[in-house]
Amino acid sequence: MSRGKPGPEQLDLAAGMHTCLAENDYISSDGVDCRNYGVLDGLYEMKEIFAGLLDVSPDEVILGGNSSLSMMFDNIASNASHGVRDSIPWQRQGDIKFICPVPGYDRHFSICDYFHIKMVTVGMTPGGPDMDAVERLVESDPLIKGMWCVPIFSNPDGCTYSDDTVRRIANLKPAAHDFRIYWDNAYSVHHFRGDRPEIPCILRECEKSGNPHMPLVFTSFSKISFSGAAVSAMATSKSNCDFIRKRLAVQSVGPDKLNQLRHIRFFGNAEGVFKHLVKIADIIRPKFETVIQIFNENLSHLEIANWTDPSGGYFISFNTLPGCAAKTISLCKEAGITLTPAGATYPYGNDPNDSNIRIAPTYPSLGELKQAMEIFCVAVRIAALEKQIQA
Amino acid sequence: MSRGKPGPEQLDLAAGMHTCLAENDYISSDGVDCRNYGVLDGLYEMKEIFAGLLDVSPDEVILGGNSSLSMMFDNIASNASHGVRDSIPWQRQGDIKFICPVPGYDRHFSICDYFHIKMVTVGMTPGGPDMDAVERLVESDPLIKGMWCVPIFSNPDGCTYSDDTVRRIANLKPAAHDFRIYWDNAYSVHHFRGDRPEIPCILRECEKSGNPHMPLVFTSFSKISFSGAAVSAMATSKSNCDFIRKRLAVQSVGPDKLNQLRHIRFFGNAEGVFKHLVKIADIIRPKFETVIQIFNENLSHLEIANWTDPSGGYFISFNTLPGCAAKTISLCKEAGITLTPAGATYPYGNDPNDSNIRIAPTYPSLGELKQAMEIFCVAVRIAALEKQIQA
Repeated sequence: MSRGKPGPEQLDLAAGMHTCLAENDYISSDGVDCRNYGVLDGLYEMKEIFAGLLDVSPDEVILGGNSSLSMMFDNIASNASHGVRDSIPWQRQGDIKFICPVPGYDRHFSICDYFHIKMVTVGMTPGGPDMDAVERLVESDPLIKGMWCVPIFSNPDGCTYSDDTVRRIANLKPAAHDFRIYWDNAYSVHHFRGDRPEIPCILRECEKSGNPHMPLVFTSFSKISFSGAAVSAMATSKSNCDFIRKRLAVQSVGPDKLNQLRHIRFFGNAEGVFKHLVKIADIIRPKFETVIQIFNENLSHLEIANWTDPSGGYFISFNTLPGCAAKTISLCKEAGITLTPAGATYPYGNDPNDSNIRIAPTYPSLGELKQAMEIFCVAVRIAALEKQIQA
Repeated sequence: MSRGKPGPEQLDLAAGMHTCLAENDYISSDGVDCRNYGVLDGLYEMKEIFAGLLDVSPDEVILGGNSSLSMMFDNIASNASHGVRDSIPWQRQGDIKFICPVPGYDRHFSICDYFHIKMVTVGMTPGGPDMDAVERLVESDPLIKGMWCVPIFSNPDGCTYSDDTVRRIANLKPAAHDFRIYWDNAYSVHHFRGDRPEIPCILRECEKSGNPHMPLVFTSFSKISFSGAAVSAMATSKSNCDFIRKRLAVQSVGPDKLNQLRHIRFFGNAEGVFKHLVKIADIIRPKFETVIQIFNENLSHLEIANWTDPSGGYFISFNTLPGCAAKTISLCKEAGITLTPAGATYPYGNDPNDSNIRIAPTYPSLGELKQAMEIFCVAVRIAALEKQIQA
């Protein structure tokens, strides 16, 4: 339960992908032999599918390998060593910084840490990051070069940015001309209750505000097809795409086009992806409902914890009393339940309140999940009691 | 004919890979669900296959995505920004340099160029790079941080390093403690005539000489299974592997394990790969023979050119009279034949003699190849004639 990992029954839904390419099926609709080298940024038909998911143009899409995390890492590596387009490489500009809304995604923080990028935290509100703080920081400090955003079903809070938040982000006037928004749209189509959240398109909003090259949108099929054998993509201005293709021309012989073709054959188009996600939602929904029900039954009357009840994404964000998260997780570990480490949702693994725990309910079976969450609730109560006794 | 690209009939030999995974076949022999996240450096069974091809231990192998070029790029990116293990990042050490044996592989040169690494050329002999020059340079200049090697069926000369060359490379005493050998073993099993060339294992030789962490071996299935959907690997000391895994832990969710499993199922083991390569050799051999026969018939009596006649690899290295390569290629282009650009086999695209042309016979059909090579021979003769008239 430590990571947002699909359960085997979700992956079973894509079993047809193993065999959806016949032996003589390797030519794309635009005539590319997908077995051979070439097509640096991926098949056009696959770009069209992503364009449908992200509400962008296929010409604004670059396809990657099996993981959008690697695309984010590579984009930051590129900006660090070679600069954002024609600017000075970040690595030669001193102690650069990123805005990190907290709680947030530990792998974003690891990338920053690896590239010696200082992390400046801002709080999350139900409508997204605290934009007063973001504006104040980004518009005054030229060393702030980037900002992490998970705009839909954020990791771990599960909140979706309000239209106002998206527009304020697009209208930032960064002190750094080489400031970039890392828009990790991992969960944009992963609602399991209600309708698909619709937020303004960050590319279009940034065009309107005169910042067309500022946003970099990332997503993948990791939680749609196979987590380890997916197709990833980024979407950004056509001019940014041109710049990225120059690096790709040195770095790559093109992504795995046969795997793209498998996705094209299996899903058909964006509509096919949405239909598949309904089946996935039916598997995920009861898991979230089970966790929330157990929390309600065991904890709601005690005032020692609160938690989110998201309608999509992969996480429930759980807050213990201050000073109780690490203890709760360690008690669970003794009972054989591995949770995301305490502090993981904060840069440098440091949750100043020692309060936030990320619950990832998707991987275990319903039975395992029930058992684990009941033990978790006991651990929360013990940790809170110990804290109250100490106080 | 501009690139070392397999022909469609070679790729057809691996048609069974499309369907070799049944719907319920996704668990590796060590129990990994290959559909899900995880296993940062790839499946052990796949490492075993590479170990058999490279004569190393599976524990010395790290698996990558679909291309070894990307692994080389990433390794250099890592050394540039973060340093070789605990050394100062290359990017902070001034104008660093790589040894580039010439003629060589244009994509190696492009990576150097991209990372602002100066390229120092040394000549090739039939037994590999001019080792007197290599030793003089590497052992005196601490800014020389790397050396490109294509030890078996080198690109484009098709020569194989002698045992003496391999041992002299392993016994280099570099002035830079963070010097690395980039051992691009792309063609180690790609003989189409005679036996597989056997050269000493660079990892073992470097252990013997006290330089265990110096070599980085790269290879892939790009010219065995599907060029665009292969599996790549690097082999290096276990301690280097540990270092590389630390970067991977930030950069990656693990490579595409289903594609690895496809390779495992289709080829079985290294022996299966060797058997498959016999079939590939039967397709490639007549193409090389055709080119050599046409050269013999049209050019051997004229003393205006020489060429290699390799027994493996993907290229014939052709030398016109000095000053005639660009003209020859441009005449071919007028006749509709695209060759590797003049100068491509030299850093910065600058062949000081304007003489070397890389011929890549594998992609066209035999009929197309015959026609193209006959026109090529005419172009060689015209260019030589013009040159002689001018002189």
